[in-house]
Amino acid sequence: MEGRPNPEQEATAARLDAVLQKMERVRQARRHKFYLRDERITLSHGSGGKATHNLIEGVFAPAFSNPLLDAMDDAAVFSLDGGELQLAFTTDTYVVSPLFFAGGDIGKLAVHGTINDLAMAGAQPLYLSASFILEEGFPIAELRRIVASMQEAASAAGVAIVTGDTKVVQRGKGDGVFINTAGVGLRRAHWPLGQTCLQPGDVVLLSGSAGDHGIAIMLAREALEIETEIQSDTAPLHTLVAALLETIGERLHCLKDPTRGGVATALNEMALASEVAIGLDEQAIPVHAGVRGACEILGLDPLTIANEGKLLAVVAPEAAEQALALMREHPLGREAAIIGSVQADPPGLVFLRTEIGGMRVLDMLVGDPLPRIC
Amino acid sequence: MEGRPNPEQEATAARLDAVLQKMERVRQARRHKFYLRDERITLSHGSGGKATHNLIEGVFAPAFSNPLLDAMDDAAVFSLDGGELQLAFTTDTYVVSPLFFAGGDIGKLAVHGTINDLAMAGAQPLYLSASFILEEGFPIAELRRIVASMQEAASAAGVAIVTGDTKVVQRGKGDGVFINTAGVGLRRAHWPLGQTCLQPGDVVLLSGSAGDHGIAIMLAREALEIETEIQSDTAPLHTLVAALLETIGERLHCLKDPTRGGVATALNEMALASEVAIGLDEQAIPVHAGVRGACEILGLDPLTIANEGKLLAVVAPEAAEQALALMREHPLGREAAIIGSVQADPPGLVFLRTEIGGMRVLDMLVGDPLPRIC
Repeated sequence: MEGRPNPEQEATAARLDAVLQKMERVRQARRHKFYLRDERITLSHGSGGKATHNLIEGVFAPAFSNPLLDAMDDAAVFSLDGGELQLAFTTDTYVVSPLFFAGGDIGKLAVHGTINDLAMAGAQPLYLSASFILEEGFPIAELRRIVASMQEAASAAGVAIVTGDTKVVQRGKGDGVFINTAGVGLRRAHWPLGQTCLQPGDVVLLSGSAGDHGIAIMLAREALEIETEIQSDTAPLHTLVAALLETIGERLHCLKDPTRGGVATALNEMALASEVAIGLDEQAIPVHAGVRGACEILGLDPLTIANEGKLLAVVAPEAAEQALALMREHPLGREAAIIGSVQADPPGLVFLRTEIGGMRVLDMLVGDPLPRIC
Repeated sequence: MEGRPNPEQEATAARLDAVLQKMERVRQARRHKFYLRDERITLSHGSGGKATHNLIEGVFAPAFSNPLLDAMDDAAVFSLDGGELQLAFTTDTYVVSPLFFAGGDIGKLAVHGTINDLAMAGAQPLYLSASFILEEGFPIAELRRIVASMQEAASAAGVAIVTGDTKVVQRGKGDGVFINTAGVGLRRAHWPLGQTCLQPGDVVLLSGSAGDHGIAIMLAREALEIETEIQSDTAPLHTLVAALLETIGERLHCLKDPTRGGVATALNEMALASEVAIGLDEQAIPVHAGVRGACEILGLDPLTIANEGKLLAVVAPEAAEQALALMREHPLGREAAIIGSVQADPPGLVFLRTEIGGMRVLDMLVGDPLPRIC
């Protein structure tokens, strides 16, 4: 059996070759997809969509590169004792304008957002930091309202704000208040969970309707006179996640909250990271009538609009119905739906099966129709 | 022995009474000292001095109150396994202007500052987050320089930047770039260490000269034509701290880096938190000639000027000489000095024995002579 490989060895080698070629294709596509041409920062770099990815892939990722960061999940996960005790660590800055809107305010958002990033890593949120950039002249009464709202949100979610910082900038060098929160949580998922873990055959669930937060912010800006009762969906998702972790266990492959850039961007990130395709049934995706109406008037796609209290869950096919039932029992998942599935090819692509039987590619958000949404 | 307490019991009760009265006096003094009268944010609220404390004590501390936050140390310390494994968690936002200055830039500062806050809690810094608020129009080449500087600082200190966030605000709603870093470290000090742990008799050491960072920033603003080679002292202090922890051990009672508000503010915070007095020998405090000269021209006190690579260490008297020798052996402690000592009364007060044999009270920084110093 020397000198010439047998047919089985040849087949294995061929399969390996095919996989390597595919990975190279994806890498090329990714490099092509995220190319930073700009010389100056534009609002689109803060959209959470394609320009943000260009900036991250072009500036931050190569400079800071390390295995934890390179996973590009919403939180970094590491062990401190070399064993079972795994921590999740995350951060987000909030620059939402206006500061107060239907359903919430910047403080509530800053607490929920970081709780959710920890939850998406399969972690129980424990401790938050809170750091403020205040603009000279900002009314202290408004700051008190925001701080009270943060504390209310933190208490309700069972997390403590344990450390912080305050800076002040001159009038015209800030915009009222910007808030950063970072968070530490204890990981409960002791299996691979993240955007690199999608497998062909997996089922994609969305915990509720798409686009409420973004449209609520737009309406709060009064740029638009639309009669609707859309409120921000800002909410802490950690108890919904805890239920999924406990019941679905290892059959849960990925959790992601579709914030900036919306459902479309979050799914594209997953498809790229896992080198798979995701097919969606357009009809299955829940969108409130008010959001749909506002989007039609504005020429926006609800799937690219930010959410602050929704999650995407990707589960093994046999766990899909159980996950759906479990979500629907939770107050934050009553409108949950199975919206699509994962397939092997073409890697990195998200597509939509439309209501009229057609198919269209669903790209990440390009440009930024709604700057400073969170 | 019933009915009437014996003399010993009476003496104990009297001592207890005296302690309770003293604590009440300190609380009253503190409440009086930090009273928030303002209706709007002023630059002084970002000084790190008295106005910052007014804001913290008047808005943030009462709202977020919990045992970890209430310690008001630079980092929160907690255990995740209910035992030996203790974590430190901290955050700081950087709004320094200009972004580049002699001895450093905003990126380096953002890495060193959070490393130092972890080190002051007796922790080995491990992981950092990095969160950016970019102003529309900011040159990406400058962002690259800042990011490269952050990575260089992180690598040199042996920490990894593992998670991050990017937001963009419209032109005129920010100022180039603001950076938040949060950090997680593993605590190495398994004894009470912090600003509540000062004891009468303790000795106070400063690891080097006071005021370099603040004066370097002021010179970088070109508000002043002074011929001097003062550079920011920005540096990561964790290896100096590790040496102190290892050698001085439990005789090390408090570490604090005198950043915004300078040595004067940091010592006042310690005196208040520990309900002790701190007496300083003015002559013993190292100040570079260039800093002293600039301060004289500007009418500033070098002890209220920010440092970014210095620490105050409070040690038991028998450990003072050893701590001093150890500091002077370290590259970042060559100019270290014993600058004063702790006494019981009057609680909450810091005073200076002047060169001419007089005494003056050294208060926290009032107002903000150098806004946006870090």
